[in-house]
Amino acid sequence: MNAAVTDPGTQRRDARRFAMLPDPFPMWRGGQLHGARIAYETWGTLNEARDNAIVLFTGLSPSAHAASSPEDPSEGWWEGMVGPELAIDSNRFFVVCVNSLGSCFGSTGPASINPATGAAYRLAFPDLSVEDIARAGHETLRSLKIERANTIIGPSLGGMVVLAYAAQFPGATRRLISISGSAAASPFAIALRSIQREAILRDPDWRGGAYTDEQPPATGMRIARKLGMMTYRSAHEWRERFGRQPATEQQDGPFAPEFAIQSYLEAHARRFVRAFDPNCYLYISRAMDRFDLAAHGGSHAVVLARSRIDKALVIGVESDMLFAIDEQERLAKSFEQAGAATSFAPLDCIEGHDSFLIDIERFGSEIGTFLNRQ
Amino acid sequence: MNAAVTDPGTQRRDARRFAMLPDPFPMWRGGQLHGARIAYETWGTLNEARDNAIVLFTGLSPSAHAASSPEDPSEGWWEGMVGPELAIDSNRFFVVCVNSLGSCFGSTGPASINPATGAAYRLAFPDLSVEDIARAGHETLRSLKIERANTIIGPSLGGMVVLAYAAQFPGATRRLISISGSAAASPFAIALRSIQREAILRDPDWRGGAYTDEQPPATGMRIARKLGMMTYRSAHEWRERFGRQPATEQQDGPFAPEFAIQSYLEAHARRFVRAFDPNCYLYISRAMDRFDLAAHGGSHAVVLARSRIDKALVIGVESDMLFAIDEQERLAKSFEQAGAATSFAPLDCIEGHDSFLIDIERFGSEIGTFLNRQ
Repeated sequence: MNAAVTDPGTQRRDARRFAMLPDPFPMWRGGQLHGARIAYETWGTLNEARDNAIVLFTGLSPSAHAASSPEDPSEGWWEGMVGPELAIDSNRFFVVCVNSLGSCFGSTGPASINPATGAAYRLAFPDLSVEDIARAGHETLRSLKIERANTIIGPSLGGMVVLAYAAQFPGATRRLISISGSAAASPFAIALRSIQREAILRDPDWRGGAYTDEQPPATGMRIARKLGMMTYRSAHEWRERFGRQPATEQQDGPFAPEFAIQSYLEAHARRFVRAFDPNCYLYISRAMDRFDLAAHGGSHAVVLARSRIDKALVIGVESDMLFAIDEQERLAKSFEQAGAATSFAPLDCIEGHDSFLIDIERFGSEIGTFLNRQ
Repeated sequence: MNAAVTDPGTQRRDARRFAMLPDPFPMWRGGQLHGARIAYETWGTLNEARDNAIVLFTGLSPSAHAASSPEDPSEGWWEGMVGPELAIDSNRFFVVCVNSLGSCFGSTGPASINPATGAAYRLAFPDLSVEDIARAGHETLRSLKIERANTIIGPSLGGMVVLAYAAQFPGATRRLISISGSAAASPFAIALRSIQREAILRDPDWRGGAYTDEQPPATGMRIARKLGMMTYRSAHEWRERFGRQPATEQQDGPFAPEFAIQSYLEAHARRFVRAFDPNCYLYISRAMDRFDLAAHGGSHAVVLARSRIDKALVIGVESDMLFAIDEQERLAKSFEQAGAATSFAPLDCIEGHDSFLIDIERFGSEIGTFLNRQ
């Protein structure tokens, strides 16, 4: 475990720590990793009983930087949710946010150096599953000598990861919060993600995964991100927010953007191309398609009963087109059938799948209330 | 007006007829066309009073072949809806289905020869608007010496076209049916269409619109079509129809398709690349983004009041994510405020925007009932 560092390139303060995974680290669908590590950040203090840990898994693209801290005062992806006296209260809990295995923010993934060759893995990275992301998080906790989490929490992809965690490590947590997650990828979500991947795979600059730093498959990544934004938000929100307002920048050229919604998508796409590795994106995206809790043997309720989760909170959003509210309701029912004390919170936020990033007040209220119960 | 012909290349019988547009044909946003024509098909017989014509406008991609006929027995895009004793009854009405101006199934569009140069227009085609598609349909009717339509009908893009028709030609029809259309493109629909266009525009094979027949921007068109299918249907339908069934063809290669929903999208994409011209697609797609009935002066209700529509039927589908049900409801309210006797039919079909192509029984019942009233 390294101490927090300042990145010499950016001078940005860095609160990341690193956990070495067991060597070899076996992958769920075969293959193994050597010398793999997980980047994580923490908030709060582990108590003497080592039983106040909350593990937070992320969506597809965020890093472990969920919230600002003295070590890294930059805004996190769940700013306002994690910290002293916030819903996930770092005065009370020791919060560990994990950068997913397969991602590119410090954890080992397809963009990392393969110790066997000295070059980046790229497509030589073994098949990645949601189960591997869960196992890597579990090993991160074990590296901190924590045998049992107080609660595991995950939104979006993280909502799949917490289920894979429960399925693989019975008794390793007492409580679970799934936010706009899924027990099995729906065909609509598979359709979206497969089109996003196709945009990258067919970009000539992808070069079979061997793209250069100077010339990444920017067109594919742009389209993938714009499609993501389209399905992460909602038509209702956009009508209220953008309507038919004109584009913020006037551009020339054939079929140039004309509406504000296009400028908004463009800004998101530009940021994403610089921020995320395309091969990592492909690996994690496919892992989400393949996830099905039933692969762990039996119905979802049977799998969850074996996990020994006592209390579950399932939050969903009615305007979420990607992880639809009926999926959330079915998941909550499965927890009930599994014998867990289950709360189901269907929220009518208008921001779609991304509501958990925006409506901190309502999500915080649900999460805080759940965590404050004994 | 030409007679029906057999295409010498395909030996396919062809029921198309052609109307020459006035020369010059002025375009709504400027510019004009010379020697332009519209392909159309007809069913039934024009009565002596010349007052039993129904004009049918199409969605973005269909041709004028709405239904089979003795002249062209192949299945049409609205088979079962148009014909003798069907909802749009050709025993009673003279039905004219118009291939949109700007399209590529016989009507003049960006893929047509520019008489000024002897080469295809491509991007030299003037800006296309929904208003131009409506005007070209109106001129088609005038070429048949029909001054007033009994009813104008349009689904999807056609639902925009009938509104542009009403706005531009007050008194030219007494009745109007809008099916899953829109009085002003929503930011969500603009987002989708602008991403579809970007996939084509950034395909290296697009070549600034100067692609070859041998090497069209197939990747861009594939992605555009898959995205279209994703938003034309619904997550609910796909869950019932495909679930997590495996792909119908096993394929090799990195990130090959694994699920049936991917095979389904692939089949649609392959057909579309061969069927539709990319520049035509870009022009019509942008025209849809730009459409706003309010551009005709005043609120939607004020514009519709000037149109002198007596009776309107607005059909929408609750699972339509692209032309949302609340848009349909607002359009129906605008007709009511405009003084038209308005029926609003919100249908709970699960097939999304494309329901009008699939649930012929329910749509036929609404349309037939409306047409049978006096």
